[in-house]
Amino acid sequence: MIPELYRDLLTSTALAHVATLGPNGEPQTNPVWFDWDGAHILFSQTTKRQKYRNLQRDGRIALSIVDPANPYRYLEIRGAVERIDPDPDLTFINKMAQKYLGQERYPYHQPGDERVVVIVKPMHTTQMG
Amino acid sequence: MIPELYRDLLTSTALAHVATLGPNGEPQTNPVWFDWDGAHILFSQTTKRQKYRNLQRDGRIALSIVDPANPYRYLEIRGAVERIDPDPDLTFINKMAQKYLGQERYPYHQPGDERVVVIVKPMHTTQMG
Repeated sequence: MIPELYRDLLTSTALAHVATLGPNGEPQTNPVWFDWDGAHILFSQTTKRQKYRNLQRDGRIALSIVDPANPYRYLEIRGAVERIDPDPDLTFINKMAQKYLGQERYPYHQPGDERVVVIVKPMHTTQMG
Repeated sequence: MIPELYRDLLTSTALAHVATLGPNGEPQTNPVWFDWDGAHILFSQTTKRQKYRNLQRDGRIALSIVDPANPYRYLEIRGAVERIDPDPDLTFINKMAQKYLGQERYPYHQPGDERVVVIVKPMHTTQMG
């Protein structure tokens, strides 16, 4: 599914800019930390966030990832949310803290934040560079 | 419209990740060079690109801009296309080449490419960091 020449971006520490659909079908976007399990893009979310509500309403999603070493090289992944899993022990967000911060635990967890893992199935890509 | 604390991002050489709506209302996203005229976000586009067709169909748009010096600081701008202007002399794309490449002329222009300037009116922002 992902062109071989761009797979390195999936294990890089680049951010993914996630586009979702707001309540009126309008685009919304912001950067996230992400993981790649070999077949899906995964990212963490709290259930209070607009993006979580958007994806529960309409699971269509697009992510754009720029090579940190080359701003003219990027991969866009379009797809759909396959599943949203709970993350009650913060296993996934701590894994992301390890990847992006080199820290064992995610330092910004707030008591009361309910964390989930959004699991995205890629269906189409565009790329450049 | 834009929170003062984030206005520096509008004159930075960060990329803007632009989210538009595809033919079936699905989100699409990719990075662009952008300019800020004090009231609008502007970016270049060729008329052959999917993003151009998307914006002609539905002008709703969102852009996310991360601080190049601090990946935990970002600004999202949601808005709508106010106008799409022709760029027959490549004035605008050359200005972007100056901003991003330090070159007087955009080096990737292809004969036959029809360039336009997409002018976006911000209507709402979200931010972090």
